[in-house]
Amino acid sequence: MKALPVIGVDVGGTKTLAAVVSREGEIEAKVVQPTDISSQEAVLAGLDAIVDEVRAGHDVAALGFGIPSRIDQKTGRAVASVNIPLAGVDFRDRMRDRHGLPVGIDNDANAATIGEWHAGAAKGARYVVMLTLGTGVGGGLILDGKPYRGATGSGAELGHIVIGMGGPLCGCGGHGHLESYAAGRVADEAARAFYGDASDGRELVAKAHDGEADAVAALAEIGGRLGAGIASFVNVFEPELVVVGGGFGSAAGELLLGPAREVLAAEGLSPAKDAVRVVPAQLGFYAGVIGAGMIAVEALEAEG
Amino acid sequence: MKALPVIGVDVGGTKTLAAVVSREGEIEAKVVQPTDISSQEAVLAGLDAIVDEVRAGHDVAALGFGIPSRIDQKTGRAVASVNIPLAGVDFRDRMRDRHGLPVGIDNDANAATIGEWHAGAAKGARYVVMLTLGTGVGGGLILDGKPYRGATGSGAELGHIVIGMGGPLCGCGGHGHLESYAAGRVADEAARAFYGDASDGRELVAKAHDGEADAVAALAEIGGRLGAGIASFVNVFEPELVVVGGGFGSAAGELLLGPAREVLAAEGLSPAKDAVRVVPAQLGFYAGVIGAGMIAVEALEAEG
Repeated sequence: MKALPVIGVDVGGTKTLAAVVSREGEIEAKVVQPTDISSQEAVLAGLDAIVDEVRAGHDVAALGFGIPSRIDQKTGRAVASVNIPLAGVDFRDRMRDRHGLPVGIDNDANAATIGEWHAGAAKGARYVVMLTLGTGVGGGLILDGKPYRGATGSGAELGHIVIGMGGPLCGCGGHGHLESYAAGRVADEAARAFYGDASDGRELVAKAHDGEADAVAALAEIGGRLGAGIASFVNVFEPELVVVGGGFGSAAGELLLGPAREVLAAEGLSPAKDAVRVVPAQLGFYAGVIGAGMIAVEALEAEG
Repeated sequence: MKALPVIGVDVGGTKTLAAVVSREGEIEAKVVQPTDISSQEAVLAGLDAIVDEVRAGHDVAALGFGIPSRIDQKTGRAVASVNIPLAGVDFRDRMRDRHGLPVGIDNDANAATIGEWHAGAAKGARYVVMLTLGTGVGGGLILDGKPYRGATGSGAELGHIVIGMGGPLCGCGGHGHLESYAAGRVADEAARAFYGDASDGRELVAKAHDGEADAVAALAEIGGRLGAGIASFVNVFEPELVVVGGGFGSAAGELLLGPAREVLAAEGLSPAKDAVRVVPAQLGFYAGVIGAGMIAVEALEAEG
């Protein structure tokens, strides 16, 4: 008998994707809807509705969420969130009570990492560093064949390593973090400097793909700084793979990864830097929802 | 019946310490001798001799080594070493054959970390980052209650994260690594600048403990840079503890840790930075040999 599928939900600041996901990480059904962020109650009601909708007609075994939040894994609370109004809510218990299923939760960057690990670029690997370059820089870790979450669940904030002491202000209030140098908003700034206030990182990436020299150079600079971060992680973790995804990271692709690999060659230690592969993410928009499904499976297995 | 003790051996570039260590990490007997680094054969013969000497009259269950080397844990080879002539040698098999005991090996910084975790500053913790500030900067990780070694055993090179892109040359050939800014040799350089060519980091630390303003400021600068590295690790790992040891790190103590905590407060994320404690190592010179003993216990348990 085939094991029942699960439901994964990837909660974003603008839209939410829910899917019925097989144990192998295949999407069997899906629903997308805008995220109503008018209040915490609205977020939770919207999640109830999308779960009910995608669940209709499917027999499922568990429910998993990837949310843009700091999670306390012991209590299952969403302690604080970025871009959505979720703070101090007993998210896991509430969802378990409402939907009558085992529930797993994790932050969105960990969910994307787990998705790429089960069904994407990192399939089969036991040591993976994933970086998601979007508006900010998120990250996730698979260490010795398991997702790494830190002492309480707020670990793997890979965008917040210091790579340039005293450097530009970071979204978190620190200075010179990887996010300060390699987030999509850095590409937005470069685009505005070259092409005027109406431009953005998307245009910069498009022009670079067309071979426009300023745009290629701007992305190479960002890629080199990404490479300083990647080298740091390679020296610390000796991973098999570094996977780079996120909206900006995936769009820019080799325009970032090529220069990043050059800096890795200069700053990494052997044998770690020789054996590691730096590759693009494969699942794009679907990494998070597939990962959320696999987090549901983890919750199911934890319940025995 | 009490479990038999083990032998731990901490191999340094100038001296080697071997001890009979209880399962609880207590030293029951010990021998120190200079390390003969005239050749690989001399190193190995010296290790055989010190093991035979400390073992005499003790019934022991296993043998563990902390060596200043890059280890391949799958094969038990010492791939390459710093300060001693060990390269491409089947270290674990050779020692098992020669001494007729289960043998575990690891690099010296991991051994010191494991020592502090079993019997020192990090006793009882499940998530620990240790930094050893000596001539260079070494490090070790305890994650989810287990030593972290990377995909093949060369992970946790914590001294080689980039904290200042384009900064000073590092011993490894990279630039702007934590080791470039926070190793004992940086204190040596400051001492020579203030007090002349005959001075060194020891004098700088002594003068700072006496309240000499230049010396205090120089160590505070190094401590602040150490803090940038610590903040990076806190954001990545969400550890319970960061332990700072090594010859230079232990001698300078709070002169480094105070300024480091200030930078952690600025660059770390909540809740990780609020919950973590940054503390001095407790075992000093003995961390490595006790850790090597615990590595012997690991090897024994792995053999079933």
